[in-house]
Amino acid sequence: MADSPPSLPLADGAVTLDADRRRRCGYPEVVYGEGKPPEAIAAVFAALLSRGEPALATRVDPAAAALLLERFPSARHNAIARTVNATAQGVAPAEPIGRVAVITAGTTDLPVAEEAAETLLWMGLAVTRVNDVGVAGPHRLRERLAEFESADAIVVAAGMEGALPSVVAGYVSSPVIAVPTSVGYGANLGGVAALLSMLNSCASNVAVVNIDAGFKAGYMAGLIASQKHVALRQQEAPK
Amino acid sequence: MADSPPSLPLADGAVTLDADRRRRCGYPEVVYGEGKPPEAIAAVFAALLSRGEPALATRVDPAAAALLLERFPSARHNAIARTVNATAQGVAPAEPIGRVAVITAGTTDLPVAEEAAETLLWMGLAVTRVNDVGVAGPHRLRERLAEFESADAIVVAAGMEGALPSVVAGYVSSPVIAVPTSVGYGANLGGVAALLSMLNSCASNVAVVNIDAGFKAGYMAGLIASQKHVALRQQEAPK
Amino acid sequence: MADSPPSLPLADGAVTLDADRRRRCGYPEVVYGEGKPPEAIAAVFAALLSRGEPALATRVDPAAAALLLERFPSARHNAIARTVNATAQGVAPAEPIGRVAVITAGTTDLPVAEEAAETLLWMGLAVTRVNDVGVAGPHRLRERLAEFESADAIVVAAGMEGALPSVVAGYVSSPVIAVPTSVGYGANLGGVAALLSMLNSCASNVAVVNIDAGFKAGYMAGLIASQKHVALRQQEAPK
Amino acid sequence: MADSPPSLPLADGAVTLDADRRRRCGYPEVVYGEGKPPEAIAAVFAALLSRGEPALATRVDPAAAALLLERFPSARHNAIARTVNATAQGVAPAEPIGRVAVITAGTTDLPVAEEAAETLLWMGLAVTRVNDVGVAGPHRLRERLAEFESADAIVVAAGMEGALPSVVAGYVSSPVIAVPTSVGYGANLGGVAALLSMLNSCASNVAVVNIDAGFKAGYMAGLIASQKHVALRQQEAPK
Amino acid sequence: MADSPPSLPLADGAVTLDADRRRRCGYPEVVYGEGKPPEAIAAVFAALLSRGEPALATRVDPAAAALLLERFPSARHNAIARTVNATAQGVAPAEPIGRVAVITAGTTDLPVAEEAAETLLWMGLAVTRVNDVGVAGPHRLRERLAEFESADAIVVAAGMEGALPSVVAGYVSSPVIAVPTSVGYGANLGGVAALLSMLNSCASNVAVVNIDAGFKAGYMAGLIASQKHVALRQQEAPK
Amino acid sequence: MADSPPSLPLADGAVTLDADRRRRCGYPEVVYGEGKPPEAIAAVFAALLSRGEPALATRVDPAAAALLLERFPSARHNAIARTVNATAQGVAPAEPIGRVAVITAGTTDLPVAEEAAETLLWMGLAVTRVNDVGVAGPHRLRERLAEFESADAIVVAAGMEGALPSVVAGYVSSPVIAVPTSVGYGANLGGVAALLSMLNSCASNVAVVNIDAGFKAGYMAGLIASQKHVALRQQEAPK
Amino acid sequence: MADSPPSLPLADGAVTLDADRRRRCGYPEVVYGEGKPPEAIAAVFAALLSRGEPALATRVDPAAAALLLERFPSARHNAIARTVNATAQGVAPAEPIGRVAVITAGTTDLPVAEEAAETLLWMGLAVTRVNDVGVAGPHRLRERLAEFESADAIVVAAGMEGALPSVVAGYVSSPVIAVPTSVGYGANLGGVAALLSMLNSCASNVAVVNIDAGFKAGYMAGLIASQKHVALRQQEAPK
Amino acid sequence: MADSPPSLPLADGAVTLDADRRRRCGYPEVVYGEGKPPEAIAAVFAALLSRGEPALATRVDPAAAALLLERFPSARHNAIARTVNATAQGVAPAEPIGRVAVITAGTTDLPVAEEAAETLLWMGLAVTRVNDVGVAGPHRLRERLAEFESADAIVVAAGMEGALPSVVAGYVSSPVIAVPTSVGYGANLGGVAALLSMLNSCASNVAVVNIDAGFKAGYMAGLIASQKHVALRQQEAPK
Repeated sequence: MADSPPSLPLADGAVTLDADRRRRCGYPEVVYGEGKPPEAIAAVFAALLSRGEPALATRVDPAAAALLLERFPSARHNAIARTVNATAQGVAPAEPIGRVAVITAGTTDLPVAEEAAETLLWMGLAVTRVNDVGVAGPHRLRERLAEFESADAIVVAAGMEGALPSVVAGYVSSPVIAVPTSVGYGANLGGVAALLSMLNSCASNVAVVNIDAGFKAGYMAGLIASQKHVALRQQEAPK
Repeated sequence: MADSPPSLPLADGAVTLDADRRRRCGYPEVVYGEGKPPEAIAAVFAALLSRGEPALATRVDPAAAALLLERFPSARHNAIARTVNATAQGVAPAEPIGRVAVITAGTTDLPVAEEAAETLLWMGLAVTRVNDVGVAGPHRLRERLAEFESADAIVVAAGMEGALPSVVAGYVSSPVIAVPTSVGYGANLGGVAALLSMLNSCASNVAVVNIDAGFKAGYMAGLIASQKHVALRQQEAPK
Repeated sequence: MADSPPSLPLADGAVTLDADRRRRCGYPEVVYGEGKPPEAIAAVFAALLSRGEPALATRVDPAAAALLLERFPSARHNAIARTVNATAQGVAPAEPIGRVAVITAGTTDLPVAEEAAETLLWMGLAVTRVNDVGVAGPHRLRERLAEFESADAIVVAAGMEGALPSVVAGYVSSPVIAVPTSVGYGANLGGVAALLSMLNSCASNVAVVNIDAGFKAGYMAGLIASQKHVALRQQEAPK
Repeated sequence: MADSPPSLPLADGAVTLDADRRRRCGYPEVVYGEGKPPEAIAAVFAALLSRGEPALATRVDPAAAALLLERFPSARHNAIARTVNATAQGVAPAEPIGRVAVITAGTTDLPVAEEAAETLLWMGLAVTRVNDVGVAGPHRLRERLAEFESADAIVVAAGMEGALPSVVAGYVSSPVIAVPTSVGYGANLGGVAALLSMLNSCASNVAVVNIDAGFKAGYMAGLIASQKHVALRQQEAPK
Repeated sequence: MADSPPSLPLADGAVTLDADRRRRCGYPEVVYGEGKPPEAIAAVFAALLSRGEPALATRVDPAAAALLLERFPSARHNAIARTVNATAQGVAPAEPIGRVAVITAGTTDLPVAEEAAETLLWMGLAVTRVNDVGVAGPHRLRERLAEFESADAIVVAAGMEGALPSVVAGYVSSPVIAVPTSVGYGANLGGVAALLSMLNSCASNVAVVNIDAGFKAGYMAGLIASQKHVALRQQEAPK
Repeated sequence: MADSPPSLPLADGAVTLDADRRRRCGYPEVVYGEGKPPEAIAAVFAALLSRGEPALATRVDPAAAALLLERFPSARHNAIARTVNATAQGVAPAEPIGRVAVITAGTTDLPVAEEAAETLLWMGLAVTRVNDVGVAGPHRLRERLAEFESADAIVVAAGMEGALPSVVAGYVSSPVIAVPTSVGYGANLGGVAALLSMLNSCASNVAVVNIDAGFKAGYMAGLIASQKHVALRQQEAPK
Repeated sequence: MADSPPSLPLADGAVTLDADRRRRCGYPEVVYGEGKPPEAIAAVFAALLSRGEPALATRVDPAAAALLLERFPSARHNAIARTVNATAQGVAPAEPIGRVAVITAGTTDLPVAEEAAETLLWMGLAVTRVNDVGVAGPHRLRERLAEFESADAIVVAAGMEGALPSVVAGYVSSPVIAVPTSVGYGANLGGVAALLSMLNSCASNVAVVNIDAGFKAGYMAGLIASQKHVALRQQEAPK
Repeated sequence: MADSPPSLPLADGAVTLDADRRRRCGYPEVVYGEGKPPEAIAAVFAALLSRGEPALATRVDPAAAALLLERFPSARHNAIARTVNATAQGVAPAEPIGRVAVITAGTTDLPVAEEAAETLLWMGLAVTRVNDVGVAGPHRLRERLAEFESADAIVVAAGMEGALPSVVAGYVSSPVIAVPTSVGYGANLGGVAALLSMLNSCASNVAVVNIDAGFKAGYMAGLIASQKHVALRQQEAPK
């Protein structure tokens, strides 16, 4: 469940996957691609896919993305999110086990939001994207209320003053995961202004993750949403 | 859904409750007691109870607590949490709609954890308390794993180095709401050290609320847990 | 035009008013009451009123307020704002020379907002108060839009996440003066979180003053509004 | 009214202008050029000009500037300000609707000041530039007092100790918008020293915008100045 | 030469003066009174005076001041500065060995400035006080230029935006010691805003000491001034 | 004993070794390679080896490493640690004089940990490496307890939330030297989050060194371990 | 091994000592007295002494100290350190198992240094105190070199600029534990200035603990020193 | 007297020297070369030299240095200091008017120290350099005491823990100007650690300038030293 887990030995590149992980955490490992050699990422992908698991890599540079696309037919690259995901051959896509809305204040917040969205898709959730509805254009958010008010959980990515999560949370009763982005300049202090703003939200249904931590925001929201639906399926199952 | 909602007019003390709130948010208003006159808090309690709603006040000073205990027979004061709650006459306690574990690193984190616990009880959840299991005594947490690993959601309150949420999150797959406390001195910077630690958690299933924000941690965890069980009941209901 | 001008000699308490000030700045001196002896404040009041000027003291403690009320029949004490103002005998109240809206996120922001409002009244402006319309209850602000959208300038006081000025500025085209308050706890860092949020506002028509600086917010908004109306009267005058 | 509004869809570059904006805000959209592809900026320019609106782009890199100059005959590039503006064919320049002084402490503050100046020109205001009058040469500012004391509003850009706005504000009665620049090194902390200095100004007629936020400083000052003159014209009009 | 030297043994209060100090540093020890028992301060005074040395205590509380006044006939208490000094019986006051100007922005800066002034008097310098000449009233400083431009060195105490040292330094060629005061509120951050401002001064003849460090500012300026005059006397002496 | 000792004269590159250093500190000088010309580093190596001393350079860039490998047959380059060490010809490796465990939270902490390890090897200690045992996988650390619990001292390198030293210290009674790494992003503030976390450790047997200071962590742990074994050998010696 | 371990249940005051602790950590529990009721501290003392263990309480207020002195004949109160320790009846004091020097920059650092010293005495070490040898009087430290250069480990407590540990470390080859104190004002930022100074020490044999953490500094130094001597005794033992 | 005075018009490069400057400040202008075009710097040099003034440029890049060396025969480039100075033809070097010692902790502090030294030489002072005497090698400073104890003023440049100014100040009675350097990494926070350390110096004869501000440190020390000697010459003159 580690956010940036460097699980590959440095010397020989042999893969040591945490095979017990799905049992403990519900989800297999994710590759944090920052600074990892492309071949090492590919090795993890191969190991996961061979076991029928879906694979996800975040913070992937173009060279690594190219290698993964070449190597794995099911690989899909989201250049804005800097992610690559792939699914095992013959594993049909499951029904989504819940729905999460991913909302941005501006288009410059998209890289973080898209990382969250790709994480959610990899977890098997449906994603509703609502972009560019920052607080300075108050009507824009209101017009799209119907799209997100019934989501199981909501991710809100915002930089600058980071006010959007508070406003979104005022419209809904579901849990909101706020992710500050480093978008802005000067007194934004690299995202610290938005982070502090979100931590001080006057709305009660807001919790916060690290600056630019799109993966973690998506993972947390996905966990909240999927646990509900897993329970629903389990209750339904015996019938 | 406001964390510290001053909903009372200053001039005359007349109560203007947000009657629409339960519909929008799922829960009625909470009284943030800091600096409020005891009579004003009592007025909100009276209004809520008369409508059959449960009442909760946080950050209550001893004088306000005494007045509430005197005025409302069902009132219960948690002196460590600095909360008072009360239930309407004739409203039988419902079955808990989920279970949340509230974990502390040390007993000095108890005021924040108890505020979270009381918030959860007011929301109708069962609470499992696991106290004094800080990371410097690693066996203590492990010994109590069975008590919290099946909870629907977990609140972890910790001051000083704020490491406990990461360790707890490594043992479970449920969402963890981390609340830093201002416990400590010197380089703890009033809780900022624990806050930063939690935001940088290497565990993916951790989101964070403000320093000492016991109410918000409880509310957020309660929302996560109850939504699951509300959905389960709804699915079950028609039968 | 000094924000906290200690213009009284320490030794003998004799008053040395800056008689040239109205010509240079448009407004006479204001007494910053923090730590000033009541008699010293009263001496400035006497000097100003004897010249027919209106008098204003900010950050006045109860003892000083009591003395001023006793000494000057026209004195009015705003206990929330901690201000006292008084007008010279025989000077009839002028027509307001413009209108400023003073908006708060929560009632705990009132002391700062009321200091701004009293400053505006002393400058001869009409004030429209819109209280307790924080972003977590988004409908509350919208419902009162008509009251503030035509104001010449707007003061917005907010603590915690400081998001309200951005939202207000999205609804209007007039200049917004944002004043962060130190309301909140933990990661609000004594108002710095709200300050940073306001400085990073994505709305273009927002400028910011110091934390809790109600006087300065009011003065700046009053200047903007009154200059417009002074010019209008001057244009009208010859006719 | 967004400071850095990314209003272009990412996928196809089709332009979706906020056509209602002039009515709500008084001014059309501005293109924040940072990181935008030149063609996307050109598309917005084309759309605005076709409706007879003036166009402004800020934070434009040389490649984008070159494209705009090539594409639009009326385009003008201010390399210091990093702006390009253009006016619709056949739209004669209007009479300035007010005058704003833009003052710098040193020539290194010029990029920020020029961004403010270009914003003001685009808004239809006259601009008086007063450069290089920092506080360490006190006579320099005094000698040029006549040039700025009658302006409707004043923008002051200063880095390092950020003292100039306080001194300027001491000479005039009009509102001063202070914009800290990141000029300096070491303990200037990227402009935070100047920002704090300006927020603590002992002058009452000073409000502050973000570090290096030339556009916002210009917009705010322009709004203050133009509202006065718009009102004057409206009063005069019927005659 | 220690700024806050606790030179008294804790156990028995016996005085261990650094008798070699005048030879090394040019001046005897100063008692930093904060938290010291009155009797301990009195013991140092007695020891110094018995050797013919002048005595100075800073940060003296009223009880200690009262004891020193009662015990030593030559003792003089400056309540604003919180200092007591005393001279040995029969030691005639020497001709001042130089002149230092001590300048304040506002009267609230007086405690720090007076601590500097008393330190200078104790060192044998003449002191010229220029108070309440903050930058928001620019003519006030200029009017008093003649009083400070010929001083050997200058101390400038200022809080809030801390701009005065830069302006003073622009008028003179002598060294300026800037001492930030903790005067102000909110974003003054306890004097840090003024400190940063002074460190970033665009004037070259400014160096800075700690926030509220009146003693050190006075000592440093006194050293600069007196070294000049000691040299002059030495050169003159043989004649 | 300096951490970053630039001991080479700039003009002529002649080597001035502190020959007395081994006597005073127990160890010869180390070359801090950052920004030093390769030839200068080689000169120190030559001087040390000619006296029979082991040589160590840290923060060595590839060009300097290549030169040292070419020039000195015994040189060994650790590319992850960015160190080169070399031993004098004919000096047989001594028995290790103690054992230190070097533990990392993740593989991204390896550069800092390896710098510590190489420092320890150069000091003559045995090193046990325990990598990738971060707190989010709690079983991983426990499984390897036997490898580090009997070490004389322990170095723990961790970035992000910096929790690992507290957990390690809870398992052992030996002194733990915690070294924060700048691994992470956003609210890790370049390693400050991990630093604060370690300083606030609730475990008593933890002391901290600077961010990324692998050399100092290794040196300090090596000193603790070797002093014990030097004393043991001395006690044993006479027999 | 927890620094501030609240090991007492809140409800009934029953004592639950960690009986396994001496085996794991080498030392029994210490009572962190801050905010603990005197009776609770006394209960732990009784439990420890009944098992023949020495007892230590830190951060003890006068009321708790009085109770402990009254209740336990062997109790000793160090009012400067705010500690009380006591030894079991009939347990003869052991030979010290090593020697640690505790050095202060000024007498105002004594509370922290004495807390370290008392911790060391409780651990069974000999303590050499070297007080008031701050860097501004460089000869003072040098004169006392003989007293501390042969210590097994050294604790240095310093506030203000925190320079003393670097200087001490330059004279010795043993490990130095630096503990910053919050002594000072203004830019000392509550001890952060001294903390940063110590973390950046150019001496390699310095590690740092939290601001004012006298207990931890003493514990860490005691561990280093005692491990050496325990090993020596073990080696000697069979003979 | 501006530290970074951009005195050149942007449009045409024509030189507008402040001819009155020597009278007011005692010294002509200095060119702050950062970001200035080489030709612009050369133009100021030409103008100054033609009037017989010495010229100095700081923060000069290699291209500008090359041009100045080519253009002016008397130009001298100090590559470590990044300065160029030149003297007017036919102006014989004057007798030094005082002596300043420039002391560094390590050779990495040399760029800042050399900038100070070159500034002092340009001002006509003699400079004594004492390099690489950091506090971790305490004997090194002491051995060189004779070289600096009789200087008229002292500049001390130090990075990392910034302790050297305090130690130097303890040895001398002359004024010490401390200049923190950004040398170091991690918790040095770009020089802020050294800056705070110096501001908190326990020595009274220390004042501080901005991080890396070699020019200002030199200028301030030069002013102190030269004023003494100017006065001496004036006194001597009539004879």
